Amino acid sequence: MKIITQKYGGSSVATTEKIRRIAEKVKKRVDGGYKLIVVLSAMGKTTDNLIALSEEITLKPSAREMDMLLSTGEQVTIALFSMALHELNVGAISLTGHQAGIVTDTVHRKAKIVSIDNNRIMKEFETNDVVVVAGFQGIDQEHNISTLGRGGSDLSAVAIAAALRTECCEIYTDVDGVFTADPRIVPAAKHIPEISFDEMLELASSGAKVMQARSIECGKKYNMPIWVKNTFNDTTGTLIKEEDETMEKVMIRGVALEKKEAKVTLKSVPDKPGIAAEVFSRLGAGNINVDMIVQNSSTDGTTDISFTAPKEDLPVMMETANKIAKEIGAPKVDVNPSIAKVSIVGIGMRSHAGVAAKMFRVLADNNVNIDMISTSEIKISVVVPEKDGEKAMQSLHAAFELDK
Amino acid sequence: MKIITQKYGGSSVATTEKIRRIAEKVKKRVDGGYKLIVVLSAMGKTTDNLIALSEEITLKPSAREMDMLLSTGEQVTIALFSMALHELNVGAISLTGHQAGIVTDTVHRKAKIVSIDNNRIMKEFETNDVVVVAGFQGIDQEHNISTLGRGGSDLSAVAIAAALRTECCEIYTDVDGVFTADPRIVPAAKHIPEISFDEMLELASSGAKVMQARSIECGKKYNMPIWVKNTFNDTTGTLIKEEDETMEKVMIRGVALEKKEAKVTLKSVPDKPGIAAEVFSRLGAGNINVDMIVQNSSTDGTTDISFTAPKEDLPVMMETANKIAKEIGAPKVDVNPSIAKVSIVGIGMRSHAGVAAKMFRVLADNNVNIDMISTSEIKISVVVPEKDGEKAMQSLHAAFELDK
Repeated sequence: MKIITQKYGGSSVATTEKIRRIAEKVKKRVDGGYKLIVVLSAMGKTTDNLIALSEEITLKPSAREMDMLLSTGEQVTIALFSMALHELNVGAISLTGHQAGIVTDTVHRKAKIVSIDNNRIMKEFETNDVVVVAGFQGIDQEHNISTLGRGGSDLSAVAIAAALRTECCEIYTDVDGVFTADPRIVPAAKHIPEISFDEMLELASSGAKVMQARSIECGKKYNMPIWVKNTFNDTTGTLIKEEDETMEKVMIRGVALEKKEAKVTLKSVPDKPGIAAEVFSRLGAGNINVDMIVQNSSTDGTTDISFTAPKEDLPVMMETANKIAKEIGAPKVDVNPSIAKVSIVGIGMRSHAGVAAKMFRVLADNNVNIDMISTSEIKISVVVPEKDGEKAMQSLHAAFELDK
Repeated sequence: MKIITQKYGGSSVATTEKIRRIAEKVKKRVDGGYKLIVVLSAMGKTTDNLIALSEEITLKPSAREMDMLLSTGEQVTIALFSMALHELNVGAISLTGHQAGIVTDTVHRKAKIVSIDNNRIMKEFETNDVVVVAGFQGIDQEHNISTLGRGGSDLSAVAIAAALRTECCEIYTDVDGVFTADPRIVPAAKHIPEISFDEMLELASSGAKVMQARSIECGKKYNMPIWVKNTFNDTTGTLIKEEDETMEKVMIRGVALEKKEAKVTLKSVPDKPGIAAEVFSRLGAGNINVDMIVQNSSTDGTTDISFTAPKEDLPVMMETANKIAKEIGAPKVDVNPSIAKVSIVGIGMRSHAGVAAKMFRVLADNNVNIDMISTSEIKISVVVPEKDGEKAMQSLHAAFELDK
């Protein structure tokens, strides 16, 4: 039995007309001899509408009850999609996250998948060609409905594909796949036919919006090839897969830009062991997702500690930082909400010398001042003034000849 | 632990404003020392809207997928209602039909409850004062979502009340309880404070719209007292309970009118054993819910067989009747879609003679012609011309002094 997993997002199933069109796409694959698991999101703005409804009642809803509420969105889509397949004489059945055997922890609204029980899906394939599964949702061990948070439907799809060892997982979206840069900013950006899990992970956490990092992590962990494809045309898309030797030949795979971060600096922190640990454990406890960290000791026995984090967390970030500063005797907290992070990513970096030097030279030649630097084995990120973010991206894209 | 079960229908929870108002009602009962099971329907027109959505895809949806679709309606309500209770600092949790342990057979869209597992609800009462349960839905033994069909939420409430032996079951609606007749037709109709299960059953199956027969049957089977109350005021409502000796003193409890029936007559059917059995087993197989049956043999060796059934089934009814007529040699099928059925109901009838005679006399005095008669131990129904239905109801209500 040849099985593939597909996932269609909310904009792909926004109307019954679109649902019918996708049902026809699915039927073609069935006619081609495949069985399919189709994972779906809620239709268009459904989730937003449900949230608005809850806000008419409370602004601090229980996370468990929000999951009870929001999980109805996907349930509507899977029922309608199964009906659309039946209209095309395709044997299909819809399953909620629970029915599909998706067990999560109890962290409502951002649950983690703990296990997937294949039995029901495999049993349904005895009599159906397509099993339609509600994305974004699961059930905890007490049978409470949980949701997986942002990008949750992608994760559902990749995790189910991995659990059932399907041939691949196809993530359908409204773009033609992954590009060397965001084409809206870099018109010369080129389509990437193949990319390694690690590169895609670095791009995703550097601002590329195509997929959430944790779905790619899941694909990497179980070595499940992921196709990113366009719902609305038949272009080949991008294959995210395990690294192979041909990939190393490309020095830089892509450039990413993240504008939704802010930078906070604790000034003149006493330079003692354990201070950084204290600062970042306190920030972590405040649920602030710290991205880059830079510390530089000065000669007067104090040090400046800077970090970046999502701009939306800025109020909590400032409150926490001010409290910490007071406690550890740091006289001042600086904040810069107008930064941009530009990253270049590529596994070829490992075997090519001088990439960082070239990057910094290109930025200097373009009058872009570098504020912070952070590197990994296959990525170099710099923080620059927000106004220079796009120029930095464009010039790096050209200098590393990604448009060739 | 004192527990009561309440059920609120779709019009009672049509908006978030109404949901909040009912949450306040529920809080008052909690403050009075009760734990509550609150069973809810989908908000207002939600179910109709979901059906309309499905019709954009197919006019013959799979019943299983319709249940998957429609069950989301109640799930939205219970989540919002729990949030509203939390806002009032009432400990509450929502449970789907499945989570509440409601197991049904697999007849989708009109499933029967097979069993109710109390464990989850009782466990939730250890930490909550209110358990909010999705009405209308359950799950079959294969974990498919099922719905209970028309009046399903009432049935959910009564069945849960029975399974948990709660003090009573309160069904909230938009009327002040049960009346001696429909007040829109008989302005002098009086409120009934108490009524027996059997009387309520006969009234319900004779056209009274307050509750569906199967919820009352469930109440009777488990001797669970059912209150019918008005959501929007604090009138006492009507208590439906086991018959007691004081009830027999009232000869007639109420008058009901049913206009949505049609009458079909198979003319000159050969008068042979087994013919009626054949006719009605065939109609049953066609899912036609036959109500009254009258057969009168004539002297020429043939007989006329008449029956009434819901008017909405008329097309199928005619098709089936014509087929049967041809096979058994009945030369003609008559149909009368303009009939009304008027019934008087009361357990006092058993011990009072002459009720039927008085009924027929009253109708004759009012120039209402009787077409068919059917009786049970506590009910007499007559079919009359549709145009005379209301007049018949009004004159019977007055003649039996139900306005006194």
